[in-house]
Amino acid sequence: MPFTAEFADELARIVGHQHLRLGPGELAPYSRDATPLFSAEPDAVVFPGDAEEVSAVLKLATEHSVPVVPRGAGSNLCAGTVPVDGGVVLVLTRLNRILEISDGELLARVEPGVTTNTLSEAAEKRGLRYVPDPGSRMVSTVGGNIATCAGGLRGLKYGVTRNYVLGLEAVLPTGEIIRTGGRLWKDVAGYDLTRLLTGSEGTLAVLTEATVALVPAPSGGGTGVAYFTSLEAACGAVAAIIESGVLPATLEFLDRKCVRAVEEFARLGLRTDAGALLLFGDDGPAEAVAENIDRIGKACVAEGALEVTLADDITSAEALLAARRCSLPALSRLGSLTILEDATVPRPRLAEMVGRIDDIAERHELRIATFGHAGDGNLHPTCVLDPGDTGAVERAHKAFGEIFTAAIELGGTITGEHGVGAAKLPYLLDRLGPEQVALLRRIKAAFDPASILNPGKLGS
Amino acid sequence: MPFTAEFADELARIVGHQHLRLGPGELAPYSRDATPLFSAEPDAVVFPGDAEEVSAVLKLATEHSVPVVPRGAGSNLCAGTVPVDGGVVLVLTRLNRILEISDGELLARVEPGVTTNTLSEAAEKRGLRYVPDPGSRMVSTVGGNIATCAGGLRGLKYGVTRNYVLGLEAVLPTGEIIRTGGRLWKDVAGYDLTRLLTGSEGTLAVLTEATVALVPAPSGGGTGVAYFTSLEAACGAVAAIIESGVLPATLEFLDRKCVRAVEEFARLGLRTDAGALLLFGDDGPAEAVAENIDRIGKACVAEGALEVTLADDITSAEALLAARRCSLPALSRLGSLTILEDATVPRPRLAEMVGRIDDIAERHELRIATFGHAGDGNLHPTCVLDPGDTGAVERAHKAFGEIFTAAIELGGTITGEHGVGAAKLPYLLDRLGPEQVALLRRIKAAFDPASILNPGKLGS
Repeated sequence: MPFTAEFADELARIVGHQHLRLGPGELAPYSRDATPLFSAEPDAVVFPGDAEEVSAVLKLATEHSVPVVPRGAGSNLCAGTVPVDGGVVLVLTRLNRILEISDGELLARVEPGVTTNTLSEAAEKRGLRYVPDPGSRMVSTVGGNIATCAGGLRGLKYGVTRNYVLGLEAVLPTGEIIRTGGRLWKDVAGYDLTRLLTGSEGTLAVLTEATVALVPAPSGGGTGVAYFTSLEAACGAVAAIIESGVLPATLEFLDRKCVRAVEEFARLGLRTDAGALLLFGDDGPAEAVAENIDRIGKACVAEGALEVTLADDITSAEALLAARRCSLPALSRLGSLTILEDATVPRPRLAEMVGRIDDIAERHELRIATFGHAGDGNLHPTCVLDPGDTGAVERAHKAFGEIFTAAIELGGTITGEHGVGAAKLPYLLDRLGPEQVALLRRIKAAFDPASILNPGKLGS
Repeated sequence: MPFTAEFADELARIVGHQHLRLGPGELAPYSRDATPLFSAEPDAVVFPGDAEEVSAVLKLATEHSVPVVPRGAGSNLCAGTVPVDGGVVLVLTRLNRILEISDGELLARVEPGVTTNTLSEAAEKRGLRYVPDPGSRMVSTVGGNIATCAGGLRGLKYGVTRNYVLGLEAVLPTGEIIRTGGRLWKDVAGYDLTRLLTGSEGTLAVLTEATVALVPAPSGGGTGVAYFTSLEAACGAVAAIIESGVLPATLEFLDRKCVRAVEEFARLGLRTDAGALLLFGDDGPAEAVAENIDRIGKACVAEGALEVTLADDITSAEALLAARRCSLPALSRLGSLTILEDATVPRPRLAEMVGRIDDIAERHELRIATFGHAGDGNLHPTCVLDPGDTGAVERAHKAFGEIFTAAIELGGTITGEHGVGAAKLPYLLDRLGPEQVALLRRIKAAFDPASILNPGKLGS
């Protein structure tokens, strides 16, 4: 059944008129997320106030076969929250409370709409840390981060979001409210639904509460930067660092094109003659950090670094980190359309992968620069272009298709931390094969018999 | 269709006569695992040599609706590998090669039948560590550990098996061979099948290869032991340690009854006047470890420890750890039947839970002592009795039912690291509720339409 006026009345009865949007001007902002070139208008937007309202909306939608697309801040980069089949966008930002932070149990219980940064700051005030730190953390929500299993800069040493989710409250598309896991570090009673929902991109259930693990905040930290003549040399240093027995908390790279763009944008005093910049950092007890930073610096020198700079204090560390944080805005200003991807390869294939990306860019006459997480092989090839240039947009689509194929050929994947969404669904078959895609669909059906939850995405 | 002679012939054609067992004397060892009181004879035992043979066996079994129970070393403690409905036990111990250890990528690729200790030692020789260290690691296999998401002593600081599985090769009950994840620290292309299979207790697919993460071996370590007048006092120290910002690699406890049993058994010089023993350890860079061990020791003293001893060297550290390792054998010799459980509660409820266990034991006139992982609230209440005393066996079953109920009441779970198996399936509904149990069954059906894989366990 399509969306009807009666259906809208039912929605209003559930969430209240003030939490329902139906007017075209009100719907437009929810027709897109942070992914360029994807847009589709929903029929309604609802802002439920608790799990019971979410349950009532989903039950109604299942009865009437109306699509429901859960959404947090809408900072998704793979069109994971674009309502490609219309229907209802279910926005969880009213559920934005930190319900509890327990020092004794090292955990927080939060509603899904709280931003990751809010949670991080609240933990920090208690001497604790919420580890996941995706680049979007100032705006993105904990629920959205869990739905995409967000990564960030600390993946190699600390793991990603899934490692920090202890328990979830979730509403199934048929309306049942379930609680998975809990406040426990060890719990193997049943299939691991906590992890299955983490990274399921809002296609299996709607998260209404999360219990996440915190860790004691590290007492010290250190940061440094090294320039290399080439990305190959930088990757040699990465291998040497890891083989020396150090797992740095941060190990980020910028390719030649990124370094130049950042320097032109932010005038940080970066060496624009360098072929690559490596940013490294560690945290923990002060002596251990100092020793690790020293070992990393020496490994860079031994691998032919042009220059190595260690930050003396927090201020200079922040200045070094600025180069990485500026990468995306610095590149974005070079064109009015920015496509940011996150193909990932095994760490030793990183330089080779960036070489392939450069070849692909050149062949398609595109400007693609790459930065990313050298520690875990997670690359962010970033294409800047003019959306009016339809030829370039078409070439960019082709180029990214070739980039995903290359990543798979090198033993990698089409997405390390952003998700599949609508944008990368066409490439999923190449990554997983037909047997696994068929299995994903059967799992999807086990949760969502009417296929109402975020259709056109994972599991479709 | 029941198991027939023709079916046996087909099995022989697939794995070869020399890898098929059909005689009663040959089947008996596979009628039980390490769980007391559970036993059921299979119709056949097969030892496949590769994933293709596993696939052929499963396809055949699905066609003929014959149960297949995957098995590693058979050290399971919840009857997870007992063939309760007969059929074929599929033993994976021939698949016991370490295929690769990569220093550069910090990973190992192994077949499922390799023992965890073999992998650990191979990693150690390369200066690396495979972190999961379940108590069974000398005999249990990596495949079995993944199938149960095995825990161990390092859970709080390092997490459990699931945190170290990067990728799996698995055979679906319908015969398809799939590969989940890979060599990547970040990969969100698709639902997290790697984690869904981890802990699925051989009910969704048969694992035929695993890629696991390794970490650099810590350069130093330290160990200490503290005695307290009561378990409450010991738990107070645990809280103080964690609130001081230390996450110890090891934090184990023995209750009064365990301390006495261990001392009577092993004459280690333990203080038998103590109400509880706390064993603590940390690893990492030497200075940081020394500082942490010192802070832990001081926290114990501040919380009223009777005595704190720090190990000076590896030998004395091993001597301290012996107390924990001896707990199970020391208790087992007190009766000819030992039932070891692993109810788990949030860390602050640990002393309360042990108190409840003591009350339950007294009420049922049973000898139940408890040791376990204080850091993650994972208890191992251990009941020793005489199997000929049918009254006591019945009372023990009742007592463990009450223990599981108590754990759930305190916000805990029926199993922290051993699994559900056949032994705890009756309690799963209380832990998860009917909606979640129904969902597990639908997930099971998505993998195993003919319900042939390890029936009578998780998902049944």
